[in-house]
Amino acid sequence: MRSAVARLERYLPILTWGRAYDRASLVSDLVAALIVTIMLIPQSLAYAMLAGLPPEVGLYASILPLVAYALFGTSRTLAVGPVAVVSLMTAAAVGEIVAQGTAGYLAAAAALALLSGAMLMLMGLLQLGFLANFLSHPVISGFITASGILIAASQIKHILGIAGGGDTLPAIVATLAGAASGVNPHTAAIGLGVLAFLLFARTRLKPLLIGLGLGRRAADLLTKAAPILAVAVTILLAKGFDLAAHGVALVGAIPPGLPAFAVPDISPHLLGQLAGPAFLIGIIGFVESVSVAQTLAAKRRQRIEPDQELIGLGAANIAAGLSAGYPVTGGFARSVVNFDAGAETPAAGVFTAAGIAVATLFLTPFLAALPQATLAATIIVAVLSLVDLRAIRHVFAYSRADFAAMAATIVVTLSLGVEPGIVAGVGLSLFLFLYRSSRPHMAIVGQVPGTEHFRNVARHAVLTEPHILSIRVDESLYFANSRYLEDRIAQLVAERPQVRHVVLMCPAVNEIDASALASLEAINRRLADAGIAFHLSEVKGPVMDRLRRSDFLDQLTGEVFLSQFAAVRSLRGAEHRPLAVV
Amino acid sequence: MRSAVARLERYLPILTWGRAYDRASLVSDLVAALIVTIMLIPQSLAYAMLAGLPPEVGLYASILPLVAYALFGTSRTLAVGPVAVVSLMTAAAVGEIVAQGTAGYLAAAAALALLSGAMLMLMGLLQLGFLANFLSHPVISGFITASGILIAASQIKHILGIAGGGDTLPAIVATLAGAASGVNPHTAAIGLGVLAFLLFARTRLKPLLIGLGLGRRAADLLTKAAPILAVAVTILLAKGFDLAAHGVALVGAIPPGLPAFAVPDISPHLLGQLAGPAFLIGIIGFVESVSVAQTLAAKRRQRIEPDQELIGLGAANIAAGLSAGYPVTGGFARSVVNFDAGAETPAAGVFTAAGIAVATLFLTPFLAALPQATLAATIIVAVLSLVDLRAIRHVFAYSRADFAAMAATIVVTLSLGVEPGIVAGVGLSLFLFLYRSSRPHMAIVGQVPGTEHFRNVARHAVLTEPHILSIRVDESLYFANSRYLEDRIAQLVAERPQVRHVVLMCPAVNEIDASALASLEAINRRLADAGIAFHLSEVKGPVMDRLRRSDFLDQLTGEVFLSQFAAVRSLRGAEHRPLAVV
Repeated sequence: MRSAVARLERYLPILTWGRAYDRASLVSDLVAALIVTIMLIPQSLAYAMLAGLPPEVGLYASILPLVAYALFGTSRTLAVGPVAVVSLMTAAAVGEIVAQGTAGYLAAAAALALLSGAMLMLMGLLQLGFLANFLSHPVISGFITASGILIAASQIKHILGIAGGGDTLPAIVATLAGAASGVNPHTAAIGLGVLAFLLFARTRLKPLLIGLGLGRRAADLLTKAAPILAVAVTILLAKGFDLAAHGVALVGAIPPGLPAFAVPDISPHLLGQLAGPAFLIGIIGFVESVSVAQTLAAKRRQRIEPDQELIGLGAANIAAGLSAGYPVTGGFARSVVNFDAGAETPAAGVFTAAGIAVATLFLTPFLAALPQATLAATIIVAVLSLVDLRAIRHVFAYSRADFAAMAATIVVTLSLGVEPGIVAGVGLSLFLFLYRSSRPHMAIVGQVPGTEHFRNVARHAVLTEPHILSIRVDESLYFANSRYLEDRIAQLVAERPQVRHVVLMCPAVNEIDASALASLEAINRRLADAGIAFHLSEVKGPVMDRLRRSDFLDQLTGEVFLSQFAAVRSLRGAEHRPLAVV
Repeated sequence: MRSAVARLERYLPILTWGRAYDRASLVSDLVAALIVTIMLIPQSLAYAMLAGLPPEVGLYASILPLVAYALFGTSRTLAVGPVAVVSLMTAAAVGEIVAQGTAGYLAAAAALALLSGAMLMLMGLLQLGFLANFLSHPVISGFITASGILIAASQIKHILGIAGGGDTLPAIVATLAGAASGVNPHTAAIGLGVLAFLLFARTRLKPLLIGLGLGRRAADLLTKAAPILAVAVTILLAKGFDLAAHGVALVGAIPPGLPAFAVPDISPHLLGQLAGPAFLIGIIGFVESVSVAQTLAAKRRQRIEPDQELIGLGAANIAAGLSAGYPVTGGFARSVVNFDAGAETPAAGVFTAAGIAVATLFLTPFLAALPQATLAATIIVAVLSLVDLRAIRHVFAYSRADFAAMAATIVVTLSLGVEPGIVAGVGLSLFLFLYRSSRPHMAIVGQVPGTEHFRNVARHAVLTEPHILSIRVDESLYFANSRYLEDRIAQLVAERPQVRHVVLMCPAVNEIDASALASLEAINRRLADAGIAFHLSEVKGPVMDRLRRSDFLDQLTGEVFLSQFAAVRSLRGAEHRPLAVV
């Protein structure tokens, strides 16, 4: 009974924080929810447009998913909803299958969310969060930067009011270049104007307002409201000057009312087409979301549980899929705003959902006159922060291998698209990792005179015996490097005909897997064939325990010494009793 | 000039051993070549049949490829030619594309050899031999065992003279069961008779002959000649009793003469279909061949160069592709025979090639009457040694993770075929490796009283300070485990509100990649947000050098201590000067 409650509390964190919920928390959460709602309205419309979806889908994705995350998520302050990178990935995945603007496109986007959510939830229940480790930091960082560039480029057509398309940078640039003569001056005025205003708001508005005597908090709030202000002003302009008649693309009529609850129809064929993208979208969303959640949780010494986060984000995406939405995850900027605005519990997310529901019910008639250029400008300003050239420079300085993985991710994402980009980056990181670990550091060691210590003969003045070859390997032994070990020892022995004993010094060997065991057996056998005894020294306890479960120690022609000093002391006099040649 | 010669010698090992070639070596090599030729004639016919090819293709694959390997290979005693597993893989790969028995099938097999050879040679020139490390020992071992079972099962139809087919064990068993009523008694008599004779020869003949007073060497030679004896006797039986008229399938007419030199026509479409199989065949052949070559070389304290072996095997396969052959590699049994028979240099391979050429020119009229059942029996006896149930048991006892990879390889190979089997095994080993290394061993450490040593608090009675958390991590830090490090430290700190200093003890950290660096930066930032200073201790020299190339050390809120003892001594008095909360 008790453990059932504990398990329930683990899977439903709301049972823990909900119990201590009080009036003070309520007020804090309500204030935070209000600010986030104001921020989320234009974002959800804009990101839906980026995903190739009608604006209401962005609103729908900002209602039920937030409630689902509040029930299952472990972060107190993560703000879930549509985000730029996932919207781009949705457009790429669904655009492959169904033409944009059709009912099938909407259904496929909802199916993608449902599938991605189901995968995340399954991974959470099976505790498979470590799968995200396949995505190294340089690969994610490169992917996000490249996505930011792609997204910004894809919005230029809306800013200028020209035709455009393409999923890759060369394609986008080519279509823009082809359509450049058709710039609509009214659209461009709105688009560039909003862009300039938002950039100004982002960098200069807050100090200016404070300089004008406004309080820090009020200045902050007004700055955050800049996008909604741009929305309101451009709606008024569009209505006042009948911009639609001048060719300015508007958001258009949004169906009133809340989303209908429906299970998207997933045929086996569609499942096959969406499974890969759903997995990648889920993993990318999870990695980004956890990183934000961890950063915010640490500030208040709270904890998030990555495996439970998979369940929380899974629930959010399932909710998105069932309520005519599209894939969602925790957004960086929005979560920071939620945190700074004082959100104390996931209830803030529920209140935000309520806010968006109210907006969906009552504000949509006004939003119909919103110029798309305004949304495009919102997107461009939001994604500029994703492009992190500093990170590229730092990785380049730090590690060429990591830089290669990052560069491959960026180049392939920009030139071939988002999915090939991730796959190329992950593939190259695994490849480079294997390459590096296939050549572990090995040193021939000798005794530091007058001590029991052994050091690399290439770096220190040490004593060696001609008939004893002592080799230290500075890495766990496993399939990636076991063959190198065989090669290396064969080479070292072939170069030294006088050697009668080989001692492998293993203080840094944390593991010996079955491949390495087979290699050690082969080394032992081959050395025996050449009349050389094979010894080990300084083998760690757990490694020794495991070796005892094989018959390697029985086959071993030499001994296992507790220390290298003991090995050399014992073998020093053994020059004239080498192993009998088999 | 000098370095050009050295490079030439590196890529053409024949220049080294050829210079010292003398009469004694010539005699040894000629004797060995004679024995290997006798062994190779039935094998080359049999393996060609296994590959779904006419018998002469097996002979062709045993001429030029041997000469090519002799020029480029580094093993003195490796006997290259058709082998069972590669023949099975060839049948699976080519059978997917072209129907067996057509001219297109032969051309595709030659194209496969050319492609595989070109890939191996490229890998050798680019020193990409480490790619073979993706194949862990349990995966190869499981794959070879499963292949042996598949091969033996596929030959039963020839032994019994019934129809049959299928690339997987269930399919083979089903077709055999369906055709069981059609057993040809004459074929079965030949097939089972030869099978019994060869099994007897393998296990009992040699002791028997020695018991009868024959010399050990002569007994050995006669035992090795058992397959050719079975070939001769069953040819005579087939001719004498006109077995063809009784429905016994014979090898049939073999076109006389040596193979024509021709470049196989590889269309881009065929290239796309064959590239994957060619790569797998090349890698599997390389891994098996290098393992044999290394074992034999070690017995005489010789060396083989894995990257040059890629070139040697690449050249052999290119030669096979250009002379109407099919993929080849170094065979285990044949190489051991070559070694035992006294082969001293790769010239033995050239003499073997000459022997097979002579056989192709003059013996083919006799071979036409050879029953296919004889060849099938030869194959079954040869592959029985591939099935290594002992290895399965040992891996099971040693490591469950390795056993899982091995079991997956076996099950998938038997049930879905050779290529899915390898891919599943490699995928699962990488997955399990990542899983294991994603949770490195970490210990909270304390000071052993009266010493400067620090040990795990869970295992030793040690002293700790409530405001200092000392954590030792026993693994290199890289993308697979960097997120776990973040989680773990966040968790440990969240559980200990009194902590003001975290010291990460790094004596076992051989590397910190860009992902781990990003995690350390995140940990540092998050701890700073919580008012906790972050320190490192016992960082290795090369790791420290690399950290200096980032700005992590500038950001670090704490210090880098040379020893854990120095860290604790310095921080012990620091209880009342925690980091200012940011």
